[in-house]
Amino acid sequence: MLSATPQVRPRRLSVWFDYASPYAYLAVSRVGALARERVPDCEIDWRPFLLGPIFQRRSNSAGPFMEMSPAERHYRWRDLKRHAALYGIPWTLPKRYPPAGLNAARLTLVALERGWGEALIHALYRAAFVEDRDIGDDLVLAGIVADLGHDAADLLTAMKSSAIKARLTRQVETAIEGGLFGAPSFVVDGDGTGTGGEVFWGNDRLEQALAWASAPWLEQEKHQEAVQGA
Amino acid sequence: MLSATPQVRPRRLSVWFDYASPYAYLAVSRVGALARERVPDCEIDWRPFLLGPIFQRRSNSAGPFMEMSPAERHYRWRDLKRHAALYGIPWTLPKRYPPAGLNAARLTLVALERGWGEALIHALYRAAFVEDRDIGDDLVLAGIVADLGHDAADLLTAMKSSAIKARLTRQVETAIEGGLFGAPSFVVDGDGTGTGGEVFWGNDRLEQALAWASAPWLEQEKHQEAVQGA
Repeated sequence: MLSATPQVRPRRLSVWFDYASPYAYLAVSRVGALARERVPDCEIDWRPFLLGPIFQRRSNSAGPFMEMSPAERHYRWRDLKRHAALYGIPWTLPKRYPPAGLNAARLTLVALERGWGEALIHALYRAAFVEDRDIGDDLVLAGIVADLGHDAADLLTAMKSSAIKARLTRQVETAIEGGLFGAPSFVVDGDGTGTGGEVFWGNDRLEQALAWASAPWLEQEKHQEAVQGA
Repeated sequence: MLSATPQVRPRRLSVWFDYASPYAYLAVSRVGALARERVPDCEIDWRPFLLGPIFQRRSNSAGPFMEMSPAERHYRWRDLKRHAALYGIPWTLPKRYPPAGLNAARLTLVALERGWGEALIHALYRAAFVEDRDIGDDLVLAGIVADLGHDAADLLTAMKSSAIKARLTRQVETAIEGGLFGAPSFVVDGDGTGTGGEVFWGNDRLEQALAWASAPWLEQEKHQEAVQGA
């Protein structure tokens, strides 16, 4: 059937992030302004998830920083410091690493549901990578929620509900099924699950993800074709 | 002692590459023109080395593509294809991966010594990642050398000499001692060994390495300071 008019729709950028990832902190700090500038009609779809269960499933598990060689870990901290300076983003080498992001991710799901997720995301990353606070601590989480003007007791109860726990678990499953393996990841024009579109991995691919949302520079084939025979 | 005039010296960019790395292919294809444009007085110091021995020494060894999760390998090929298209660099998904780059690296040391290393480097990467030829095969190497107008028999003999084998082994040791752990790596203003300067890892950091060569945006402190307490 021939269609008379092309479909117009806003672009969607799904941003997958883990509070344990300092590169996700850089990307999350940049994406709002950059997306508004480069893809004005772009909707940002925030997707907290956890890398831990993904790394655990690998036959040859190498976690992020924890199991890197000393040379690579050394390099990564330097790389992060260079990037923060380049972007003008505040950055403190965390004394505790990685942050315990499990409850923070659950809390973020609650806040997203209630419409103030983005403010919480920035506050949590700032706590972890600027203020070097322990976001695994309920008291720290309660303080952050209260500072944002919400009822901390109510929020922490919701955060610990079995419904929210199950939702985060499902979100991690969705990420794995969608082929994600690291954070931050960006999915351009995915489906309602935040996957199924063009995948970009890493803070250093954010500009490419936004460029793709404006004008994909490869034919919009399915990923499968690109890896035929791989 | 006060010095009357600041020292002026050309900048040096050491480019560490392994023929097994498709991202090194992208970087090696780009660095010449980009360096001439952005850092006109920049000298490129070509450093073939091998990642294999570096990965083998890791307690938790995860090689490059070979041992990645299927999702990550899938993503990487797509990422390479996107980059090649973006840069306008020819690219063929290789049927044999990774290329057997040991003898190619040795041959490169010989050619660098004789003053035509750069031409060989481009020819070898083209053979591996555009023409999908087996650069581990002596006949293929001989053909490439002959096409460049040199005596293949002579070169292959030199390539297999114990002196050249020892030099490549030493070069890998130098890389490890200098904190390198992946390819491509760029070292800005290192010492005579190609290490000891500011390290950047990955094709996606080439622009930053050149920017650093022009104007380092962090104080020129020693790396150690950046990772205090890390």
